[in-house]
Amino acid sequence: MRSILETFSNSFPQRNYLIEIICPEFTSVCPKTGQPDFGTITFQYTPNELCIELKSLKLYLQQFRSRGIFYENVTNQILDDMVHVLSPRWMKIRASFTPRGGISTSVIIEYPFPN
Amino acid sequence: MRSILETFSNSFPQRNYLIEIICPEFTSVCPKTGQPDFGTITFQYTPNELCIELKSLKLYLQQFRSRGIFYENVTNQILDDMVHVLSPRWMKIRASFTPRGGISTSVIIEYPFPN
Amino acid sequence: MRSILETFSNSFPQRNYLIEIICPEFTSVCPKTGQPDFGTITFQYTPNELCIELKSLKLYLQQFRSRGIFYENVTNQILDDMVHVLSPRWMKIRASFTPRGGISTSVIIEYPFPN
Amino acid sequence: MRSILETFSNSFPQRNYLIEIICPEFTSVCPKTGQPDFGTITFQYTPNELCIELKSLKLYLQQFRSRGIFYENVTNQILDDMVHVLSPRWMKIRASFTPRGGISTSVIIEYPFPN
Amino acid sequence: MRSILETFSNSFPQRNYLIEIICPEFTSVCPKTGQPDFGTITFQYTPNELCIELKSLKLYLQQFRSRGIFYENVTNQILDDMVHVLSPRWMKIRASFTPRGGISTSVIIEYPFPN
Amino acid sequence: MRSILETFSNSFPQRNYLIEIICPEFTSVCPKTGQPDFGTITFQYTPNELCIELKSLKLYLQQFRSRGIFYENVTNQILDDMVHVLSPRWMKIRASFTPRGGISTSVIIEYPFPN
Amino acid sequence: MRSILETFSNSFPQRNYLIEIICPEFTSVCPKTGQPDFGTITFQYTPNELCIELKSLKLYLQQFRSRGIFYENVTNQILDDMVHVLSPRWMKIRASFTPRGGISTSVIIEYPFPN
Amino acid sequence: MRSILETFSNSFPQRNYLIEIICPEFTSVCPKTGQPDFGTITFQYTPNELCIELKSLKLYLQQFRSRGIFYENVTNQILDDMVHVLSPRWMKIRASFTPRGGISTSVIIEYPFPN
Amino acid sequence: MRSILETFSNSFPQRNYLIEIICPEFTSVCPKTGQPDFGTITFQYTPNELCIELKSLKLYLQQFRSRGIFYENVTNQILDDMVHVLSPRWMKIRASFTPRGGISTSVIIEYPFPN
Amino acid sequence: MRSILETFSNSFPQRNYLIEIICPEFTSVCPKTGQPDFGTITFQYTPNELCIELKSLKLYLQQFRSRGIFYENVTNQILDDMVHVLSPRWMKIRASFTPRGGISTSVIIEYPFPN
Repeated sequence: MRSILETFSNSFPQRNYLIEIICPEFTSVCPKTGQPDFGTITFQYTPNELCIELKSLKLYLQQFRSRGIFYENVTNQILDDMVHVLSPRWMKIRASFTPRGGISTSVIIEYPFPN
Repeated sequence: MRSILETFSNSFPQRNYLIEIICPEFTSVCPKTGQPDFGTITFQYTPNELCIELKSLKLYLQQFRSRGIFYENVTNQILDDMVHVLSPRWMKIRASFTPRGGISTSVIIEYPFPN
Repeated sequence: MRSILETFSNSFPQRNYLIEIICPEFTSVCPKTGQPDFGTITFQYTPNELCIELKSLKLYLQQFRSRGIFYENVTNQILDDMVHVLSPRWMKIRASFTPRGGISTSVIIEYPFPN
Repeated sequence: MRSILETFSNSFPQRNYLIEIICPEFTSVCPKTGQPDFGTITFQYTPNELCIELKSLKLYLQQFRSRGIFYENVTNQILDDMVHVLSPRWMKIRASFTPRGGISTSVIIEYPFPN
Repeated sequence: MRSILETFSNSFPQRNYLIEIICPEFTSVCPKTGQPDFGTITFQYTPNELCIELKSLKLYLQQFRSRGIFYENVTNQILDDMVHVLSPRWMKIRASFTPRGGISTSVIIEYPFPN
Repeated sequence: MRSILETFSNSFPQRNYLIEIICPEFTSVCPKTGQPDFGTITFQYTPNELCIELKSLKLYLQQFRSRGIFYENVTNQILDDMVHVLSPRWMKIRASFTPRGGISTSVIIEYPFPN
Repeated sequence: MRSILETFSNSFPQRNYLIEIICPEFTSVCPKTGQPDFGTITFQYTPNELCIELKSLKLYLQQFRSRGIFYENVTNQILDDMVHVLSPRWMKIRASFTPRGGISTSVIIEYPFPN
Repeated sequence: MRSILETFSNSFPQRNYLIEIICPEFTSVCPKTGQPDFGTITFQYTPNELCIELKSLKLYLQQFRSRGIFYENVTNQILDDMVHVLSPRWMKIRASFTPRGGISTSVIIEYPFPN
Repeated sequence: MRSILETFSNSFPQRNYLIEIICPEFTSVCPKTGQPDFGTITFQYTPNELCIELKSLKLYLQQFRSRGIFYENVTNQILDDMVHVLSPRWMKIRASFTPRGGISTSVIIEYPFPN
Repeated sequence: MRSILETFSNSFPQRNYLIEIICPEFTSVCPKTGQPDFGTITFQYTPNELCIELKSLKLYLQQFRSRGIFYENVTNQILDDMVHVLSPRWMKIRASFTPRGGISTSVIIEYPFPN
């Protein structure tokens, strides 16, 4: 799936700065109930040599539209794919899902993983 | 009561990440007045080997629906039950109750207990 | 159930005025799933000879806490009970329930029933 | 109590216009429980020959600070006193009280009384 | 598609009242770009003999998940299907879609169609 | 004071349309206490042959900066000046002042004056 | 300018329904100061035989990016162009501009023009 | 005054946790003007052996209803009384008063007092 | 100007606590354009031996009503005057001005000045 | 481009304080699609010897109105130009752009660049 992600050269690799990307139109499928899940994925990262190309990120996230996958797994996989493609200096992902059974869930992961 | 809580394997035990769960439909009974209390329970935790299964958490919280229990006790008991079942690396619970007599109360507990 | 509702004399029966009562702590049980429902009941009425006593209204609404009843039925029954006890000149009830399966529902009834 | 209300001459009696006054610091005492009530009183009126002087309105409303009086009565009495002193062409009062036992109440009166 | 919609008997057909249903998790596909659209569908209706069963409504709306269809068409079709199945006395649908190219669109249809 | 108001030709005098102007930076002086008052003046009008030039309106309103004048009088005078200069088909002014002694006041005038 | 506007056939010309389009990214140039203006254009219309194609609307509005034009004129011209191209049964445009000199302005036009 | 405050045993004295109490219905009297003051008192504390009983806290705060006392003094006195009765490990009080003369004031005190 | 500022004795000089004062009705004059500026001044300070008397602070700030002074200068001067009069242990001032030319500006100063 | 930026002398160079400037009316052009981008640029800086003159900053930002430039580049260039002209002790820029394809992006840069 991650092969769809495209990058472009960071023009300012010698400085540490932050890019924040908010994707409120994420949807996947609950592997247990087969029902669609909806959420907002927020990325924050400090680029190294590469930045993520936004249209390819949109298409990458759309690949989850028909996939059955749990909250924790989808968030970790997105982090892994982004880290693999970008090798960022730092990255944080927050995935916040809409309520099911009256309960809302978010998964928050930071890379490098804190001790 | 805690036997109703179910878990599933954390697929990423080697990394520290955060799961946040918001349950705005909590209700119990005030042991003094016999009147129902209403509140929102928010969990934040870093899983170890186990994650909480959400439907079982919902059913667990519903067990308080007819129980008479004070704010402080219910929050501490929920923390104890969750810690017993999950052995998380870190957990924080905030229980925020609706106003009674014009006064709103929250109880916030963090595990491991700070010094 | 309606026998628990108490009234007091409207001191100003010769004038038409409005009383609005908002009860955000309503809970009943879904007869299909056995799961608790949560909602806000809002009353607006023009009293005739009688006004509703608020504590008795609270106790009346608490009687639904363990009852299995559908949204449409609970709202119509509350209207019927209130109309029976108060004989108001006009009354409107809005019952707004929290999301289930990502869907929120409200039921709105006005008395006398519009043509 | 109404003798404390002062007025000044409406400089534009030949035109119908609206004055809106919001008093969010109203407090009285519940005659049943002896506990203080808190609310916001909103006035809207079209003056005839007289307008209400604001400081005297503030002092008038402060007279309820130690008085035991029900929601419906306090709102009707304020309307009666204001109508007596101002003889407005039209007046509407909305009194919105803070929650008690999880229930919020407002009383809304319009003068002349609608049929 | 409409065969998936289930109904239940309106227990109060002799009175006109309103049911409001908000579905914020609607998604379909733009037939022009192949990109997913996201929106909120709000229903208001006065039932005749039948009410819509909520879970079947959820499943009905999920059928649009992979269909390419324009905003105007999807809203009109949902209205037609609901009217066909429910024969309501009155119904209004508002479909509000998230921004595309910086532009947000809503389609609002009322039945019976106003002159 | 009104001589400072400038106008420009309405290019569309044959059609009725609405212009809305919000001025949140109004300040005058209370003639009783000598203390400054602050408020927001909102205009809505349907132009006839003339529209108000915005910079001249700003300078006109600034003339009240050092003037002692009551809420009711300032609002009526602004309406009179605007009507005199613009001869609009319709105009409504809402002047909303910040709280004094915990009480907020607005004055709302419509031209032509309603019966 | 209006030649850039494209339409598509209204598939439901026999029914009256409403389309609402919100364009918060409008910018033009003040002909007096040469400074850019910013605003939100909101359209509401009941289509006749034709609906507006959204991408062409976006490109049409972008044509104002470098044009010097007053608030009243730009709003009236957009209405005229849309009416010319769509021949709608009804249309309303609200153009709300950001503050200049502390003053915000909106222009609201409805077609057919009210008497 | 502090003798009215009642406590109950902290069931979890071996752990450090936080209790937050929000009291938006505080009122006292300004000793200078004799006019009532209104505010919100927010408590946060880590209990030692004792927790505050909420109804007694409400009655304690009501004792200020007729007392003339300055903002700084009332906040410090409430802290002193609470610390005397509870001997908490940590406590913070924020008292936020409504605007007077267009100016809002808060007083924030933490115990033990920071260096 | 600072001679108008009055103080009163801090009754609790042995403890470090915080006083926060919000003044949303500040206005001065731009020395470049002669146009009025509007803003909100927020003070936070830890008193030493003296506290600021609020009415004198209001009168002090009103002295800027007719003075031409830049944002940076007015904020620094207010800080200097307050520090001169109060000798606080710590003070922070935030002055936030309303937009001019679509641009909003705030100036934030802390005393003692950070390195 | 940066030659348009004007400065004035910081009257308080011996103290570290903060100036915050919010510019919500930024627009440039996407070099890929040729479509306009819209965003809010927020500056925070501690001046050294020089402060930025606001009108020149407005004119400087308007130079991007017709330029094709990527989010990351525009933000870095603005920082570089401001640092070149002001030599501030510290500066942070946040550029937040409106959604494209359902995705919002911000770029945040701090000077001196953190390690």
